[in-house]
Amino acid sequence: MGAPRGAKHYAPAMIEEVPVRPSADDYVTAQRIAFAPLLFQAVRSARDMGVLAALDRAGSAGLTPRDVARETGHSLYAVRLLLEACLSLEVVSLEAERYALRGPGVALLHDERTRVNLDFTHDVCYRGAFHLEESLREGRPAGLSTLGDWATIYEGVPELPPAIRKSWYAFDHHYSDGVFPRAVRMLVQRGVHRLLDVGGNTGRFALQAARAMDVTILDHPGEIAIARASAEAAGLGERITTRAIDLLDHSQAFPTSFDAVWMSQFLDCFAHDDIVALLGRGRAALNETGRIYVVESFWDRQPAESAQVSLHGLSLYFACIANGTSRMYHSDDLLECAARAGLSVEADRTLGPWHTLLVLKP
Amino acid sequence: MGAPRGAKHYAPAMIEEVPVRPSADDYVTAQRIAFAPLLFQAVRSARDMGVLAALDRAGSAGLTPRDVARETGHSLYAVRLLLEACLSLEVVSLEAERYALRGPGVALLHDERTRVNLDFTHDVCYRGAFHLEESLREGRPAGLSTLGDWATIYEGVPELPPAIRKSWYAFDHHYSDGVFPRAVRMLVQRGVHRLLDVGGNTGRFALQAARAMDVTILDHPGEIAIARASAEAAGLGERITTRAIDLLDHSQAFPTSFDAVWMSQFLDCFAHDDIVALLGRGRAALNETGRIYVVESFWDRQPAESAQVSLHGLSLYFACIANGTSRMYHSDDLLECAARAGLSVEADRTLGPWHTLLVLKP
Repeated sequence: MGAPRGAKHYAPAMIEEVPVRPSADDYVTAQRIAFAPLLFQAVRSARDMGVLAALDRAGSAGLTPRDVARETGHSLYAVRLLLEACLSLEVVSLEAERYALRGPGVALLHDERTRVNLDFTHDVCYRGAFHLEESLREGRPAGLSTLGDWATIYEGVPELPPAIRKSWYAFDHHYSDGVFPRAVRMLVQRGVHRLLDVGGNTGRFALQAARAMDVTILDHPGEIAIARASAEAAGLGERITTRAIDLLDHSQAFPTSFDAVWMSQFLDCFAHDDIVALLGRGRAALNETGRIYVVESFWDRQPAESAQVSLHGLSLYFACIANGTSRMYHSDDLLECAARAGLSVEADRTLGPWHTLLVLKP
Repeated sequence: MGAPRGAKHYAPAMIEEVPVRPSADDYVTAQRIAFAPLLFQAVRSARDMGVLAALDRAGSAGLTPRDVARETGHSLYAVRLLLEACLSLEVVSLEAERYALRGPGVALLHDERTRVNLDFTHDVCYRGAFHLEESLREGRPAGLSTLGDWATIYEGVPELPPAIRKSWYAFDHHYSDGVFPRAVRMLVQRGVHRLLDVGGNTGRFALQAARAMDVTILDHPGEIAIARASAEAAGLGERITTRAIDLLDHSQAFPTSFDAVWMSQFLDCFAHDDIVALLGRGRAALNETGRIYVVESFWDRQPAESAQVSLHGLSLYFACIANGTSRMYHSDDLLECAARAGLSVEADRTLGPWHTLLVLKP
């Protein structure tokens, strides 16, 4: 009453939120995403065809496309396309017709982690990622058929073509091996003599642990065969027991009376309900003073944003290639599963820059 | 002589350049590249499964993953993976468990150009881009076989599966249609009555130009059939002449006596030597006062960096899908080809934000 004419448009209920308007930089980000698969392949090719290495040798002086073509032996056409794609992703800089390597290019060329990630994406994930939407809608790894005819990747890894298998294992080992020595010292300090390594893969952790304790490895038959052979070759055949098991058949009990059940980067291969069941089976495998040791990389606990990006990328691999149901978890997810399995948290600490160690007590 | 012991390491010739050390941000960029194909598919799925639209409706208040799952009908697992991937690419923000759309997300959802680019990348290029390195090493479109059994895409477009063909034409038309009305006005002002539309595709430019002049379209038989039908349907059958020709057989002369030879976003489909030959054939098609009109998007002349990124991405499509030899050019490349074909530049001006018009005179 008494409001001036025209003022009604300014009444609080009528105020509309100002929508986000993309900035020029936002459009750059959007186009980098829109062309990402092509640009990714260009960066990979620039690395694998020696373009990045040629720029690296030239240092800040940089090289012209003709220089790079001469040094690498590739066509000027190929070299120009690769350099321009790298320019658009800030992998290289361009000044007065000379291209030079920038920080992200140095990481792509020299950083082991970046190399392992990129190879894994290209060799293992690229083709199957085309089926991500279908995978998420149907809850199954619809992209796995690009690698072989299995229900999950875990049955298939030992049968992958050698080049793809190499990238898979390089990735797997890169993210696990770093924490092994520290983990073994910790287990020894805690007086562990008998350890059950659940999802022990090809036995790389077991081979280290078995120098200090007896180890039993559980995994799929293909991995167990490799682990058995490695144990024998290392002269640790008597310290390491191997047992093939269907980890998803929760009616199959684990062997019992262990001081420690070890689950390192294992639970991320399963959906919530399976994690609860596996923790329950692990719990039943413990002796009176035993503990379950869980090692995971939680995306909410990464000090570096680059690590978070990697874990979010990796989750997509689980969705469209590995099994369609698991992921790299938020720490809250795993803590909730532990509670549901009747386990309390005795310790929750970092184990290397990426990893968290949870010590769980029945 | 007389230099203090140990000082030799500091002699100028021994000073080594300090290598570029990647910053924390550089590692983020590198990991975004290393996982780019997976993250791309996640963003695409987030768009096509309604996740971005749900966030858009919620505005700055944002939504929890559970809200998004409820609104879209997808699993919490799927929604979380998509939101986290979008977070890692700055498509969305996360605060207190609520995700909100950021600028790049708005562009991905609402900007027609971004949508057309992304659809083109996924539908036309994604699978073939896996073969980019092979394409560049061998100078042939090694990825084209993922779409069909042709030597170049141009023969194949009319035969593409409907969904893929739709993305191809949407992309093609988006980048050309905008300049047509302005171009026709300019041609009329310059007194053009007879125009030869070289590489006229399905006739979209010809249909506009033919209301003001006589037009002859040259292209591959598949496109010409579509162009003919369109001309008849528009009642312009008498103004438009169509002629199928092998554009790469440089012994085949073009028809002659034209006021204008029109080559709009056409020369980027060819390698340098073919461009010179095509310009020569165009030159022979002109009457005494005729001119060649070339419209191209040059990557060195884009005021917006986002446009440059798109053109660099698009060049890779030419390498691995279209023909293995052409690209989006630098303006210097085309100007050099024109000179080699004995043509001088009468005018060089912008025609819309992306495009350059070159008027070439024998």
